[in-house]
Amino acid sequence: MSLYIGLVHYPVYNKNYDTIASAVTTLDVHDISRLARTYEAKAFFIITPLVDQKELVERIKAHWTKGYGASYNPDRKEALQLVAVVESIEEAKERIKQSEGEPPICVATDATGQVGKVIKFDRARDLMNKAEPILLFFGTAWGLHRQVLEDSEYVLEPIHGPGDYNHLSVRAAAAIILDRLVGR
Amino acid sequence: MSLYIGLVHYPVYNKNYDTIASAVTTLDVHDISRLARTYEAKAFFIITPLVDQKELVERIKAHWTKGYGASYNPDRKEALQLVAVVESIEEAKERIKQSEGEPPICVATDATGQVGKVIKFDRARDLMNKAEPILLFFGTAWGLHRQVLEDSEYVLEPIHGPGDYNHLSVRAAAAIILDRLVGR
Repeated sequence: MSLYIGLVHYPVYNKNYDTIASAVTTLDVHDISRLARTYEAKAFFIITPLVDQKELVERIKAHWTKGYGASYNPDRKEALQLVAVVESIEEAKERIKQSEGEPPICVATDATGQVGKVIKFDRARDLMNKAEPILLFFGTAWGLHRQVLEDSEYVLEPIHGPGDYNHLSVRAAAAIILDRLVGR
Repeated sequence: MSLYIGLVHYPVYNKNYDTIASAVTTLDVHDISRLARTYEAKAFFIITPLVDQKELVERIKAHWTKGYGASYNPDRKEALQLVAVVESIEEAKERIKQSEGEPPICVATDATGQVGKVIKFDRARDLMNKAEPILLFFGTAWGLHRQVLEDSEYVLEPIHGPGDYNHLSVRAAAAIILDRLVGR
């Protein structure tokens, strides 16, 4: 398995389906880096073109990997070490290509299941077991721009519980999806 | 299925294993209420004896169920309606007994797997399918006090990914556990 996670802050939608660059939520950085470490992702890309947001994430990472946080909580250090701040989806893909020798297969996540080449969890789990690097995208705000879904090789089917309500936070969705794809 | 969720702020441990009452994290209220709605729990108890923390949760709930938030985001209203603030674990159990006619079977969650009657996810999933009400406890801060684990009928085995790292946020752990116990 060669799994990479990308948390996309641009391009995403706001509530009115305008295309925006969303702000970084600091708890996303913590929660999803701990998930990345638990499910053995090779890196967790925070994708944002906004300079102040990149700096914010770098400060959080430095605090927990080199600053006081590193000795206060070594488990958090192991998680935050996986964080890499990048400008764009293209930059994330390029970085993976440089370290793996081939570009990743992109798998986007989406609560609608209406756009792109939608695949079921079983099929995505099979993909994880192959040698190719996989880049798994999660959207922030009101979700990934449809261009990201269309440009990805696959879009993962939505999460449902017993019923039809599927309005989860990205933190909860990432937890469930990683457990379904990579959990024991 | 008759599932109830309890997020315990007392008694829990701090980093030095002193017994404390932790502060409420507002994102826990949002993320776990959305999980409760997705996985069709009957109520989500926020358990804290601290008066200011109870008031904080009541304010959040009122904003999203009766205030501006209710019209701004009806999906959030559906989730937050499940929130009930209670003083203690005993009060949560008593409320369930009043509405169900019998007390719940308590299932605690714990990252160690060393205390109490530990059961596997398969067995716990079977429990969910029976008629008895189940109260599933999640701990905050450094985890549930061992008395809670010992007093519960069962303690769920810890979550692991492919390896041994298991330092997840309570939001991520609740997501994975609910999906494993109740997911399609």
